[in-house]
Amino acid sequence: MNVKARAVNGPSDTFKHTEISRRGLDKHDVLIDIKYAGICHSDIHTARGEWGEVQYPLVPGHEIAGVVAEVGDEVSLFKVGDRVGVGCMVDSCGKCTSCREGEEQYCEEGNVPTYAGFDQYGDYTQGGYSTHIVVTEGFVVRIPDNIPFDAAAPLLCAGITTYSPLKRWRAGKGKKVAVIGLGGLGHLGVKIAHAMGAEVTVLSQTLKKKEDGLAFGAKEYYATNDEETLTKLAGSFDFILNTVSAKLDMSAYLNLLALNGTLVNVGAPSEPLDVNVFSLISKRRSFAGSMIGGIRETQEMLDFCSEHSILPEIEVISADKIDDAYERVLQSDVRYRFVIDTSTI
Amino acid sequence: MNVKARAVNGPSDTFKHTEISRRGLDKHDVLIDIKYAGICHSDIHTARGEWGEVQYPLVPGHEIAGVVAEVGDEVSLFKVGDRVGVGCMVDSCGKCTSCREGEEQYCEEGNVPTYAGFDQYGDYTQGGYSTHIVVTEGFVVRIPDNIPFDAAAPLLCAGITTYSPLKRWRAGKGKKVAVIGLGGLGHLGVKIAHAMGAEVTVLSQTLKKKEDGLAFGAKEYYATNDEETLTKLAGSFDFILNTVSAKLDMSAYLNLLALNGTLVNVGAPSEPLDVNVFSLISKRRSFAGSMIGGIRETQEMLDFCSEHSILPEIEVISADKIDDAYERVLQSDVRYRFVIDTSTI
Repeated sequence: MNVKARAVNGPSDTFKHTEISRRGLDKHDVLIDIKYAGICHSDIHTARGEWGEVQYPLVPGHEIAGVVAEVGDEVSLFKVGDRVGVGCMVDSCGKCTSCREGEEQYCEEGNVPTYAGFDQYGDYTQGGYSTHIVVTEGFVVRIPDNIPFDAAAPLLCAGITTYSPLKRWRAGKGKKVAVIGLGGLGHLGVKIAHAMGAEVTVLSQTLKKKEDGLAFGAKEYYATNDEETLTKLAGSFDFILNTVSAKLDMSAYLNLLALNGTLVNVGAPSEPLDVNVFSLISKRRSFAGSMIGGIRETQEMLDFCSEHSILPEIEVISADKIDDAYERVLQSDVRYRFVIDTSTI
Repeated sequence: MNVKARAVNGPSDTFKHTEISRRGLDKHDVLIDIKYAGICHSDIHTARGEWGEVQYPLVPGHEIAGVVAEVGDEVSLFKVGDRVGVGCMVDSCGKCTSCREGEEQYCEEGNVPTYAGFDQYGDYTQGGYSTHIVVTEGFVVRIPDNIPFDAAAPLLCAGITTYSPLKRWRAGKGKKVAVIGLGGLGHLGVKIAHAMGAEVTVLSQTLKKKEDGLAFGAKEYYATNDEETLTKLAGSFDFILNTVSAKLDMSAYLNLLALNGTLVNVGAPSEPLDVNVFSLISKRRSFAGSMIGGIRETQEMLDFCSEHSILPEIEVISADKIDDAYERVLQSDVRYRFVIDTSTI
């Protein structure tokens, strides 16, 4: 079937109306009527070819919320009318150790990204800036009733990307957690870590969003452009979630960790980071990375957000405003995630 | 009391005969008649002022094995004649969380190093290239009977430095462990990891020591000067112990880790290391650091080595050969640890 979408035709193109083809339903496929699609910073990098060559036209979007419109013959997990979401992956090998353990994001064959990858049919995947998508049921998650579609969208990437490392490294009661950066990911990181019971500190460039940060659940809020901040907080945190993809002075941030603390990057700057190994050795610290989360864990995250009434802060836009939104994301001028109303596509 | 020692009088001096003063026994002090003292690479860095300014004359040595010669009034852990060892620390605050948890190496006040630091009496500490040393009993460990004094010495630094991270990150049955570098630390890392039940691979610059490595318990041995090695082994290891202090291509080594794997540096190169964060994120890897071990754990390590008949490979030298030994250590021309017979001091 042909469906409406918004695509770029080259690395410096603006978004244009287009029609793309979605495959007919295979027996385990679900056709989703997309209601909202979030705008993630990686959409921008990918659309502009900054993370490697891509094929054009390209339809980004991997924060997808909508309703099941049709199901394949053997679909057992969903029925027409279900409220569902799709995140950064739409398939994986299903056979490797990672897949069998529910960590499809680390599939040894490489997972199939929601856009700009090749699926098992050899087709180039196209994302959620569109009215419909077809996804195998194993990569679809259920959106709890108390999470509106528009707010659900950003949870599918920003939510799971922050939830997964916070869960894995046991942010929770008794733990002091810092979140570097209060953007799309960071603001969800603060809300989730707070709901997990951790004592949360925001480390942001300035104090501009301090009021927000405290409202999201942070106990402390520091500006990193104040030189004293990184000195004063040395050895303070059990866990640091770094949501900033820019090249930070890693050793200075690692020094903020207490004994046995871990700093996890969820973004990857294009340049390597300098790590002074003495920062690691002197307090047995770890510097780690984490990438989204598995499908089972994504469902768990949605259920957690439902239970704890965690919703991202969003700004809903019409499809005509995607280019403007991209510019504003690049200028960090968004509180805190743009979400496209796909009825305007 | 004045005791004989070998000291340097400046960063480029050779070792000279000297006499140093050891304090009279406080109630918890133990006087040790030193039998052997190992030569650690950090002795060289410190003696030459490469790790910061030091006071001269300086007596290095923090791999000390000997016999208790006298005990203070309230010493309860040791008696005259006991076979004992002293490692890299001779005291700590005893009150902070780290100390209370038996991790004196991470004392929040900073531990008192065996040489080139200040003790609680305000005296500058002098190390094991000497005939005697006075140490508070809490920083003395017991050398099991089946470990000769000369072989015991290197365990007090090289042994615990490798044992501690292998234990903490659970190297053992079912784990694939790589050890980077087959020197003083690396060769003990291989023996200990093998005894813990791990499948051990050595990553050394060349194949020169391959026969040794396999004899120490390694199953595989690869030369890292062969460009194919790092490509071929991508994703192979659960844990990597990096005993090399030089600036390696960290991202290439991190890529050798499997999902959730950890690479631990036990040496700290003076320059920062470049870390490509994508190496961490793509398989949720960690890059960590570890520093010696606590006193309780050092005793546990000695008991483990006793039980598993693990002894370092050593070359015993007389005190007149310390300068030669330093040059040979710098040229990696030692199999695998120099130990000074302190009766020649």
